[in-house]
Amino acid sequence: EEVLKAWVINGEGGVDGLKMVDRDIPKPGAGEILVRLKANSINYRDLSTIKNAAARGIAGERIPNSDGAGVVEEVGAGVTEFSAGDRVVGTFFQNWLSGPIHDDVMPSALGGPIDGLLCEYALLKEGGALPIPAHLSFEEAATLPCAGLTAWHCLIDGGKAGVGQTALLLGTGGVSIFAQQIAKASGIRTILTSSSDEKLARAKSLGANEVINYREHANWEEKVLELTDGHGVDLVVEVGGAGTLEKSVAAVRVGGRISLVGVLTGGLMDPTSIMRKSITLQGIYVGPRDMFARLNNALSNNNIHPVIDAVIDFQDAKEAYRIMEKAGHFGKVVITI
Amino acid sequence: EEVLKAWVINGEGGVDGLKMVDRDIPKPGAGEILVRLKANSINYRDLSTIKNAAARGIAGERIPNSDGAGVVEEVGAGVTEFSAGDRVVGTFFQNWLSGPIHDDVMPSALGGPIDGLLCEYALLKEGGALPIPAHLSFEEAATLPCAGLTAWHCLIDGGKAGVGQTALLLGTGGVSIFAQQIAKASGIRTILTSSSDEKLARAKSLGANEVINYREHANWEEKVLELTDGHGVDLVVEVGGAGTLEKSVAAVRVGGRISLVGVLTGGLMDPTSIMRKSITLQGIYVGPRDMFARLNNALSNNNIHPVIDAVIDFQDAKEAYRIMEKAGHFGKVVITI
Amino acid sequence: EEVLKAWVINGEGGVDGLKMVDRDIPKPGAGEILVRLKANSINYRDLSTIKNAAARGIAGERIPNSDGAGVVEEVGAGVTEFSAGDRVVGTFFQNWLSGPIHDDVMPSALGGPIDGLLCEYALLKEGGALPIPAHLSFEEAATLPCAGLTAWHCLIDGGKAGVGQTALLLGTGGVSIFAQQIAKASGIRTILTSSSDEKLARAKSLGANEVINYREHANWEEKVLELTDGHGVDLVVEVGGAGTLEKSVAAVRVGGRISLVGVLTGGLMDPTSIMRKSITLQGIYVGPRDMFARLNNALSNNNIHPVIDAVIDFQDAKEAYRIMEKAGHFGKVVITI
Amino acid sequence: EEVLKAWVINGEGGVDGLKMVDRDIPKPGAGEILVRLKANSINYRDLSTIKNAAARGIAGERIPNSDGAGVVEEVGAGVTEFSAGDRVVGTFFQNWLSGPIHDDVMPSALGGPIDGLLCEYALLKEGGALPIPAHLSFEEAATLPCAGLTAWHCLIDGGKAGVGQTALLLGTGGVSIFAQQIAKASGIRTILTSSSDEKLARAKSLGANEVINYREHANWEEKVLELTDGHGVDLVVEVGGAGTLEKSVAAVRVGGRISLVGVLTGGLMDPTSIMRKSITLQGIYVGPRDMFARLNNALSNNNIHPVIDAVIDFQDAKEAYRIMEKAGHFGKVVITI
Repeated sequence: EEVLKAWVINGEGGVDGLKMVDRDIPKPGAGEILVRLKANSINYRDLSTIKNAAARGIAGERIPNSDGAGVVEEVGAGVTEFSAGDRVVGTFFQNWLSGPIHDDVMPSALGGPIDGLLCEYALLKEGGALPIPAHLSFEEAATLPCAGLTAWHCLIDGGKAGVGQTALLLGTGGVSIFAQQIAKASGIRTILTSSSDEKLARAKSLGANEVINYREHANWEEKVLELTDGHGVDLVVEVGGAGTLEKSVAAVRVGGRISLVGVLTGGLMDPTSIMRKSITLQGIYVGPRDMFARLNNALSNNNIHPVIDAVIDFQDAKEAYRIMEKAGHFGKVVITI
Repeated sequence: EEVLKAWVINGEGGVDGLKMVDRDIPKPGAGEILVRLKANSINYRDLSTIKNAAARGIAGERIPNSDGAGVVEEVGAGVTEFSAGDRVVGTFFQNWLSGPIHDDVMPSALGGPIDGLLCEYALLKEGGALPIPAHLSFEEAATLPCAGLTAWHCLIDGGKAGVGQTALLLGTGGVSIFAQQIAKASGIRTILTSSSDEKLARAKSLGANEVINYREHANWEEKVLELTDGHGVDLVVEVGGAGTLEKSVAAVRVGGRISLVGVLTGGLMDPTSIMRKSITLQGIYVGPRDMFARLNNALSNNNIHPVIDAVIDFQDAKEAYRIMEKAGHFGKVVITI
Repeated sequence: EEVLKAWVINGEGGVDGLKMVDRDIPKPGAGEILVRLKANSINYRDLSTIKNAAARGIAGERIPNSDGAGVVEEVGAGVTEFSAGDRVVGTFFQNWLSGPIHDDVMPSALGGPIDGLLCEYALLKEGGALPIPAHLSFEEAATLPCAGLTAWHCLIDGGKAGVGQTALLLGTGGVSIFAQQIAKASGIRTILTSSSDEKLARAKSLGANEVINYREHANWEEKVLELTDGHGVDLVVEVGGAGTLEKSVAAVRVGGRISLVGVLTGGLMDPTSIMRKSITLQGIYVGPRDMFARLNNALSNNNIHPVIDAVIDFQDAKEAYRIMEKAGHFGKVVITI
Repeated sequence: EEVLKAWVINGEGGVDGLKMVDRDIPKPGAGEILVRLKANSINYRDLSTIKNAAARGIAGERIPNSDGAGVVEEVGAGVTEFSAGDRVVGTFFQNWLSGPIHDDVMPSALGGPIDGLLCEYALLKEGGALPIPAHLSFEEAATLPCAGLTAWHCLIDGGKAGVGQTALLLGTGGVSIFAQQIAKASGIRTILTSSSDEKLARAKSLGANEVINYREHANWEEKVLELTDGHGVDLVVEVGGAGTLEKSVAAVRVGGRISLVGVLTGGLMDPTSIMRKSITLQGIYVGPRDMFARLNNALSNNNIHPVIDAVIDFQDAKEAYRIMEKAGHFGKVVITI
């Protein structure tokens, strides 16, 4: 019996507590594929899960990370979409094929309620994987399932932004940088914030139309209004949470939208302005498989390559999370397997 | 020169400070109609404007009330939609004909930034009035512009509810009772809350499918979950504001919607659950004229009559606001002129 | 080994050529359920498939009928939604869970490219069945998968009709009668046509607001315009095809919609009016599983029972098709097994 | 009293029958603006109106052309959006501000039921004009009201195409070339057809991803399927009408859309495939004013300049129509005034 190497959370010790274990390589059941993983990318969610697994209801060993790409090793009975040798990327939710989110989606999230992909081999459902766009490497593809799809959902399917509109992007993490790239390809004007002039310069080189250093402009929402003739933006991709949400509300136009992804900074908000300005605030949680396929089409047709900040070896995986903890990265941190 | 009687806010004294004045009857300019008003209805907004006009930026005399119905007395140049003798109801916003809300809509709200309709004659824009459905009296029609259209917007165009869905309605004020009537006609199942068993009984007679006395069930959101097999409702018409909003968030299903109308009770909220449950929270501010016309079609086709709690004479108008202050009413309070 | 009875098409002989055969009762594989069928309903599609199987690319034996309901006998590995004893109804397409139609949907239609349900036992995919609403019998549930869902899709999800709108329904076949029932529950005003005054009377008793005998009024589109103040209806549920399509185009309002289901009568059309009147003509092909679930919610919440014209025994199944051939039925023809 | 020069149709004689007349310069009434026109562009509709005014119900003199741009000379009472000196472009429909098309829109089309803009001065409604984007000349702005907005409506608001999708564009007339430019800015992949390799080369230089010479490939729909892995395009911008419509139906994917603009070539179609492939065929008739404003935002934000093939002097206006009659142009033909 052959074995695979996997990193597992033990429920304590945070990043330092991660340990590598051996597991038997599983056989794909009906409707499943066995994937030889080649790369992972990491998200804040993965870091926070590792740091506090109990808060997510995880007890005992759990393989972290939702995002992985690799090669199909073997397919189970009835699988028609994939064959051995195919390059595939997993979907964040194994049970969300299409349509609106529903109760059964949540328990199928990789690297949370079920094992993730920080390992050499894993089983995915046939409907829980997609072909990798031809122009992307495994490392690039591994950045898509959570951050890439979230950015797309926030901007396009959820945020309903399109050519001629203006979107506000907060910071230079994975979601915001993907949003910048998708916006650029879509003719959506962007205003992007960061505390670092160097990062703002990199964002401009990716096509950000306007940038604001929020260290210099603590009231950056006023700056946003200035840049939009006093009207405000059509859409905010809100990754900061309650700490920034009231500023985002101030920065969006009457009748505008806010796609709410992360609540990094905590805190409360006053809903009055949501009502007064007829704002739509929509919680976004990754997205379904067919939306991921549309993202892939967009990346392929427009020759977009994800922005990778660092590539770390599998045996040094802890280092990847430490980079994320420092929050100094621009775009995605990847682990190669 | 002929004069009209009008009630005006003086900026102080609240309801007691209202006074009746004489004004010249104006002549309709191009694109305007002169309306002989026959009825008004009142909303919390009107009461709060009277009690604190300065908070709305109103200085000096202002005629209150957004909602009025009457008869066209004379039409200005170029008016083609109306003739003298037509029964008409005004639109809350004089400048919102169709499509999404925008910056120019707000300054055209009757009874706020511009004079309202608590008077014998008023000018409306041609695009700021609609014919009264044939089956409705002036008193009934006067209930529609704010509460009726808000309920429709919350439920139908904004809330996207329809046959087979379940909506949660809070209380028995004008918006909630209209929402109940529209839901009943639309095949939308409702769960309605109140602190009064007698009001709940009246709501049931209007078609409420399930009712909850929130005095008896302080954790009424748990009761809502029970009544929806643990899933939660598709839509909440949230008229209570921050005090109830977190309960509404708990009571709505994953991927559900909350139409946010009023912030009666104040307070802050934690946006985390908006994100975790992929909820859409949408601020609703009355609605455009063509939506009002669709509401009227629905009322006509389904023979719906608004629920009127009390009808007060024009000279006793202060009494109407005092009824609203006591919050004991069920449905709408109307002033006949 | 146990056997089941099944009716099969042989590729010739039409209804007379149907023959009953024995087959082994299959075992459910992973993700499959074995259903003991209790009822079928039939559709024109089933009749036309039987009469000309080759036109649908069917060679050799094929069990007809897409629509069946029964009891789960046994579930395969990994099935979580169903247990033995559950009352279930199949979905027309075994591969359409949610979201827009796509290429992989078509080959999964029961009773066409794959075997249907005119038999005692059949395998369905877990995602190819739904629980039967508690208030419905097997016979009633069996009417839903094709005609019921098509009517819903034409009217609600595709046709975007809702309370206050007016829909034109053509004839009294299964789709039109379901559409009448759904429209009634939804507050949608209907105008329904038939060549029989007796059928029109029955339609009125189901809630049809206006009826037109198209024998008496050959130019029934003019009658529709009269009944809509010259504007035309918001939506046509067009089951007649090219023979009636130009009249439907004339009867719909500027900017209105036509949901196109069947092309019973053949013929060509001039697309000019589609453009001139800004009409949306949308082909509707049954619908996805989650839409079926929404239909079921609507039926349950509004206590709607499908209209069944005749119930035929399994061994007399040919008789059911003969009734449909005569086109004298009102609502659905059902086979009990 | 000052006079203006205007070209008028006399109801006969086609292009040769156009004659220049003197008219009094009108005064703007309430809600109107007087515009000193600087440029017109022409559309097939204008040519066909001139050639057969009676077919459009035009009797007597009528100024042709819907599309014009100029400078506000004077504003009427109550006008707040414009002042003398503003650069403005007219809207095709003077009565369509926002929302869906309705019966009152049609009678307000410039250059058809009411006088158009081939003249030195004209009155427009305040809501029948928009500011010219700063980066555009009068000649460029004059190309937008009909062809530019139609292309946008076909592609974006009506066609619902966006980044990652593929659109089929037919020919190199004004609408198709605008659609190409908007698609390019929006990340929409295009396949464009023409009978001329030279025009195809120009289309490629504008960003067309794939081009097909339909002279060489009479069955160009098969070529489209090849270029889309056999699936078909997401959207067709169908400007050709019945002659090409059946090919467009063959070239679009299951569940795809066809925006139908022109019926240049006449003929009938078989609606069967609309149904079988679940296609949405939508008639598009220019669009409302707020959609035009969104188009202008998109042009500004992405620095798009319309493609102008020829600029003809006002006194030689007949020459512009003769160029269009020859159908050899690429993009728009403009008249400078």
